Amino acid sequence: MSDDVGKVYLVGSGPGDPDLLTVKAKRLLESADVVLHDKLPGPEILGQIPEDKREDVGKRAGGEWTPQEYTNARMVELAEAGETVVRLKGGDPTVFGRGGEEMVHLAQNEIPFEVVPGITSAIAGPEAAGIPVTHRDYVSSVSFVTGHEDPTKDESAVDWRALADTGGTIVVLMGVGKLPGYTAELRKAGMDPDTPVALIERATWPDQRVATGTLDTIVDVRDSEGIEPPAITVVGEVAGERDRVIEFLEGA
Amino acid sequence: MSDDVGKVYLVGSGPGDPDLLTVKAKRLLESADVVLHDKLPGPEILGQIPEDKREDVGKRAGGEWTPQEYTNARMVELAEAGETVVRLKGGDPTVFGRGGEEMVHLAQNEIPFEVVPGITSAIAGPEAAGIPVTHRDYVSSVSFVTGHEDPTKDESAVDWRALADTGGTIVVLMGVGKLPGYTAELRKAGMDPDTPVALIERATWPDQRVATGTLDTIVDVRDSEGIEPPAITVVGEVAGERDRVIEFLEGA
Repeated sequence: MSDDVGKVYLVGSGPGDPDLLTVKAKRLLESADVVLHDKLPGPEILGQIPEDKREDVGKRAGGEWTPQEYTNARMVELAEAGETVVRLKGGDPTVFGRGGEEMVHLAQNEIPFEVVPGITSAIAGPEAAGIPVTHRDYVSSVSFVTGHEDPTKDESAVDWRALADTGGTIVVLMGVGKLPGYTAELRKAGMDPDTPVALIERATWPDQRVATGTLDTIVDVRDSEGIEPPAITVVGEVAGERDRVIEFLEGA
Repeated sequence: MSDDVGKVYLVGSGPGDPDLLTVKAKRLLESADVVLHDKLPGPEILGQIPEDKREDVGKRAGGEWTPQEYTNARMVELAEAGETVVRLKGGDPTVFGRGGEEMVHLAQNEIPFEVVPGITSAIAGPEAAGIPVTHRDYVSSVSFVTGHEDPTKDESAVDWRALADTGGTIVVLMGVGKLPGYTAELRKAGMDPDTPVALIERATWPDQRVATGTLDTIVDVRDSEGIEPPAITVVGEVAGERDRVIEFLEGA
């Protein structure tokens, strides 16, 4: 601690494999005074952080603050006390990670900060399953969508028809529960029911599981295989590449 | 070398800052027998690889092979000679990186391989400029598009209207040259001409530059600021967040 204000690093942990931390993230986890985290970085990464600098901001329930407000306030409080703070977030800090809100909160409170990107499971997950998210021969774009929307919104803000019309790969994060809804929307939007779809559960974790089907069959596949959150969904021709490479794909 | 077949690692280098290599990528660069690379990983990362294991597969011009065919053949040749090969690619291997083609080529030649994801500049670039690619309050998706399409395709395969209709953030990689074309397409598709747009040149490199404007003004801004490739374009409300945080944003 010192009289000077500290600094906050908004750090992405990547998808869960400690080997997929960036060099910078790993160094910051070692040098920070305090690491504010929730459960998303996963047990392997959290287990590498000394107990005495870990502070779990994910399990606070009830009370007068929502968890996000508590986290925001705690970052500022620690920095004002001169601490070097790592706010560790699963995946990448700004890919559906509320990093944008945290950046603004820090700036409004005049706290110097830095964003340290992390590997997003939206890309690493498919790759670990043998699926490239783009392919020169048949996709010019890839879209990442959250399946877990802000519950305060009145209706779905995701325009599935427009996403289908892009003709590109669609990757849905946290999209297991709402799979029946959006696969139906994509079929209704005119997507071929035979479009390959893959589900990747606990991407890059030691117990990663992959299930594949088509837009038409994937809900049944999910149920018969018992795929559960956290998992990501890949919709598009690229999901079919897995079958061409899986025999020689190692790791993850 | 040995009688056994070697292994190929398709490794993403991240956007150019060596600190943004993953722990795994850094270790593989040290332990590999050969590193096949082009210029995209940038001088700082390439400078960390011992000269005697570096092989530049990006500068081959003319001859009977195209560069991609040469790279494909060389990966197989080295692995068949028992070498541990790193195929180092800028950013992430499968985000417009032709990693998908290389995976299939390796599998077809019965070469064991692994994909090691890298930080994509499509996410890290905006973050380094103070821009989160998603924001809970007003975007439920982010789409990555290449501005540098396969020249063998007859017409643009990118459906800019559909991308505009998603309502999400649009990030264009390698999109400086074609900026006038697609900003016009997005306006024609009904996007607000006042939509914030940011250009990030050499994202995360020591000489990174950022220029901002709107869908209406950004081409003039590009010209007056002299923004040149490599650069990425961010189109969407999130690009306006930069102004709210830039005073306290450090690093990169």
